[in-house]
Amino acid sequence: MEVFDMLIVGGGCAGLSAGMYAARLNLKTALFAELPGGLITTTHIVENWPGVISTSGPNLGMSLWEHAKASGVVMKSETIKSAEKQGDIFVVKSSRNEYHGKTLVFATGSKHRHLDCKGEEEFANRGVSYCALCDGAFYKEKVVAIVGGGDTAAKESLFLAQHASKVYIIVRKDVLRAEPANYKLVMNEPKIEILFQQEIEEIMGTKNVEKVRLKSGRELDVQGVFVAIGQLPLTDLAESLGAELNAKKEIVINRHSETSVPGVYACGDCTDTEFKQAITGSAEGVTAAYYGFAYLKGGGGF
Amino acid sequence: MEVFDMLIVGGGCAGLSAGMYAARLNLKTALFAELPGGLITTTHIVENWPGVISTSGPNLGMSLWEHAKASGVVMKSETIKSAEKQGDIFVVKSSRNEYHGKTLVFATGSKHRHLDCKGEEEFANRGVSYCALCDGAFYKEKVVAIVGGGDTAAKESLFLAQHASKVYIIVRKDVLRAEPANYKLVMNEPKIEILFQQEIEEIMGTKNVEKVRLKSGRELDVQGVFVAIGQLPLTDLAESLGAELNAKKEIVINRHSETSVPGVYACGDCTDTEFKQAITGSAEGVTAAYYGFAYLKGGGGF
Repeated sequence: MEVFDMLIVGGGCAGLSAGMYAARLNLKTALFAELPGGLITTTHIVENWPGVISTSGPNLGMSLWEHAKASGVVMKSETIKSAEKQGDIFVVKSSRNEYHGKTLVFATGSKHRHLDCKGEEEFANRGVSYCALCDGAFYKEKVVAIVGGGDTAAKESLFLAQHASKVYIIVRKDVLRAEPANYKLVMNEPKIEILFQQEIEEIMGTKNVEKVRLKSGRELDVQGVFVAIGQLPLTDLAESLGAELNAKKEIVINRHSETSVPGVYACGDCTDTEFKQAITGSAEGVTAAYYGFAYLKGGGGF
Repeated sequence: MEVFDMLIVGGGCAGLSAGMYAARLNLKTALFAELPGGLITTTHIVENWPGVISTSGPNLGMSLWEHAKASGVVMKSETIKSAEKQGDIFVVKSSRNEYHGKTLVFATGSKHRHLDCKGEEEFANRGVSYCALCDGAFYKEKVVAIVGGGDTAAKESLFLAQHASKVYIIVRKDVLRAEPANYKLVMNEPKIEILFQQEIEEIMGTKNVEKVRLKSGRELDVQGVFVAIGQLPLTDLAESLGAELNAKKEIVINRHSETSVPGVYACGDCTDTEFKQAITGSAEGVTAAYYGFAYLKGGGGF
């Protein structure tokens, strides 16, 4: 039976950085990616990765992927469905294979939160989208709405305004909590109109989305609805292994990226770190690799 | 009186990343660098900055510098000599100027630890060096010793072996605790000889270093002595402001990069983070900028 030193579930910024370091520490490492490069690959422009004034999300994701691969990580494009412990060994299974490892790193990230309103599921991929970068170009000269009150909604509204003729931002509260630089850009973009203290009641149409009705009763004629109301951490596997989660279902880690289960680490968007950025997830991944290495050496580190 | 939102003392990976994020958060930010780019600029090859398979330390440092500058940070090549609080405002002074800020980030890094043996001070810059990358090329076809038992000593011995005819590694303990990849390279380099359980008693010479005497009594004819026995955190300024330090004189921070003093943050090599890497310092800097921003907004964040 082939036993890896470290299994890493997740191929985004955090998992790939963990893999690169683990391989440099001479750990026999396998990494499992459902989406190679992770969620950053759905981001249009990245200007806050230190040392890189401007790049694209796909470029950043791919550079991390190539670095992990070049360092010697066994890269698998497989979705892990279960994780358990058998004796001293962690076992993860995809639909095709199972893998064994002495340590386990969860870098499972998060998924887009849904509105849970009428019509959302019905019109998914027929006007309802969770990724402005992926789908925005389909709305050339059309009217779209983006739902959300944070920085993601602000940034995506700017991206959408490059294509659409008009962009509504539908904000539940009375404030758009965007990064100041992005806030300013939104305010200066004439195509963007912000509707504060509004929520979508129903998304309507025939074949595709044609309009939304707000809870206030107002209706907007739109051909696209982009949902940008945050992320849900993907932590079912960690929970099944007994790792402590917080009230938001995020994996609780310490400054060593250790979870409550010895030999199990977590990093990136699936953790309870409050301020989650690509760079903080990457650093948590590096830290996870190091403490996994130290654990295998009997806690002594180098 | 000009008051900045954030003052950052230190221009290495941590401070520059903090500056870049602070400026993106629209904070009026000044950064003070004694050594632009920080200690990483004294590193020959960097292969563990995620996403960059190989670069030089100076290149990495300069890319972080340019990113901070492009983001709008006021960059000052000044050494800060004192830090104090006057009312609600932090005041830092260089020999020429004083600056005022609402928050303060220590990214002051560390300096090279000394051997404190006879002859070390006398022969500083006349054969005794703390930076193989800076000075190694002066020892072409000469015999050198490097003192230290960690990864830095291992990496620097490999660099020195490219120039010198022979490299002794003098290790106090009975093990060289290098990254496995570097350990293997050291073991395969015929120019390198490791002397375990040895310490230097005295560095001797006339004009320049000519030999060292070990505590065992053995003498080695060497023309250069490179000291790589670790770092001392530079935390006097933080201590003078009342920030809590640990027994190693490192600044105690939490996962928000907050020190024990409200409005004061720390990141990078001056902190009590155990596993210190360029990438972890950078992430701590980013986190410091964000929580400084949140503090200025009344703790509410975005």
